[in-house]
Amino acid sequence: MSRMNFTERLRRVQQMQRSLLCIGLDVDPLKLPASIRRTANPLLDFNRRIIEATHDLLCAYKLNLAFYEALGAMGWNILERTLALIPSSVLTIGDGKRADIGNTSEQYARALFDHLGFDATTVNPYMGYDSVEPFLRQPGRGVFVLTLTSNPGSRDFQRARVGKHALYERVALRASRWNQNQNIGLVVGATHATELKRVRVLAPPLPILIPGIGAQGGDLQRAVRYGCTTRGDLAILTVSRTILYASSGKDFAEAARRQAEEFYRQIQQARKILSSVESPISPSSKASP
Amino acid sequence: MSRMNFTERLRRVQQMQRSLLCIGLDVDPLKLPASIRRTANPLLDFNRRIIEATHDLLCAYKLNLAFYEALGAMGWNILERTLALIPSSVLTIGDGKRADIGNTSEQYARALFDHLGFDATTVNPYMGYDSVEPFLRQPGRGVFVLTLTSNPGSRDFQRARVGKHALYERVALRASRWNQNQNIGLVVGATHATELKRVRVLAPPLPILIPGIGAQGGDLQRAVRYGCTTRGDLAILTVSRTILYASSGKDFAEAARRQAEEFYRQIQQARKILSSVESPISPSSKASP
Repeated sequence: MSRMNFTERLRRVQQMQRSLLCIGLDVDPLKLPASIRRTANPLLDFNRRIIEATHDLLCAYKLNLAFYEALGAMGWNILERTLALIPSSVLTIGDGKRADIGNTSEQYARALFDHLGFDATTVNPYMGYDSVEPFLRQPGRGVFVLTLTSNPGSRDFQRARVGKHALYERVALRASRWNQNQNIGLVVGATHATELKRVRVLAPPLPILIPGIGAQGGDLQRAVRYGCTTRGDLAILTVSRTILYASSGKDFAEAARRQAEEFYRQIQQARKILSSVESPISPSSKASP
Repeated sequence: MSRMNFTERLRRVQQMQRSLLCIGLDVDPLKLPASIRRTANPLLDFNRRIIEATHDLLCAYKLNLAFYEALGAMGWNILERTLALIPSSVLTIGDGKRADIGNTSEQYARALFDHLGFDATTVNPYMGYDSVEPFLRQPGRGVFVLTLTSNPGSRDFQRARVGKHALYERVALRASRWNQNQNIGLVVGATHATELKRVRVLAPPLPILIPGIGAQGGDLQRAVRYGCTTRGDLAILTVSRTILYASSGKDFAEAARRQAEEFYRQIQQARKILSSVESPISPSSKASP
């Protein structure tokens, strides 16, 4: 493990890979291409082919634990073996949205970081600081706190008004305060572009994990524009189903790569626009050389 | 699977077993009695001995998934085999505090109910209705929604004022509305007796899972008094460490039984007082806000 804090690690990986793109490896046995269903371990083989075909285009893979747990002990085995296939040039995010009382969150942190070896995880903030703290103890491991999620149910509580702020804004502010180890990030769904902009203002230096692009309909251009820091990084744009199941034929891995390339291209384009509007263009600027 | 809804099932089990007591099987390899560490599968053997020694005193076992996940694939195996040891006279609660976007919660529900076969689970409400709904589809399976948890961090968001209510009160009210299948319950920590009373008023007919008795210091008498329905049931009083680790000697199972008997006795006593004072509540018994 590097001695860098997670924010620094993410920045470095995004520089080295020149990418903000992340693929969600949410394997679903029912959606596997027919060609791969006949192998000895179809899900693992599917992941292997996807990883081989896409890793150079990404900063991270996000593995949603639910899809593996649904398969029982075999699922955990596939999870462990999938993690072993991911090159260290790319970060791994264990998307479990866990959190519990302190002594229990310790167990989850142990499972995710020590046993499975994820570089980062997602946590649910509902139970407050002491439920998140055990995940924060290793500065090199990232902890993405659910802030405003991409689903319709985000209206039920996350947008409730709490004093001057919406609840999700309070979460962003508190998470920023908890960030002693520079390893906290936030989760904001791409389906909420305006609020993503707001969260970036409230938490200027934090990584933001942005799911909901592709099948869920989030706007990629705005996700890049509003999600990045002023340095044009630390947003993680996550696509799952649109890439994984781009083709149900034998060419699924090539189709996934083409789809990932397309997202990669669009993100780079959005970043270019971003950096061109970022610089001081006002003629009255005194900062010109 | 019975065709009764979960609330009815719980009521029946509490009647048949004459108990509101639940043991949290939160196995921790570091806390195992030395005598059992030498067997082939110490954690499973520990659970077996605890179950044999206590099941007739209980309405449910709660298994916190974190403690099993922390052991990887082996942990899942122990979890499955532990569940197989629990007699069907007692309910099983998979305490995972999960919830995610709809298609992912579906996977969790499949893992917990179909694969592992739990009778009930705990869920985190932060992501709103569509993250909870997939768990609700089988009326016979219970879904306990985190409302006000026993830990210090419950102050950070759960107690935030949202309009006329605290957030946890809004959660209790919404959960009541979502209860079309009569299978929703709430989680309220025993460390918050006054608020437990309040939740019981807001959600009169819902089961309430009440952790935090024993090591966490919750008050058993008040948990029974405030947590039960007017019929004197549907509160589930959960004790973990105080029973499991009552002795570190060879007699750990007997010591656990004695401890469980003591809790059982105290609960029955509190229920007796409850049924004798059931009728008019004196105005002076109102708790201060």
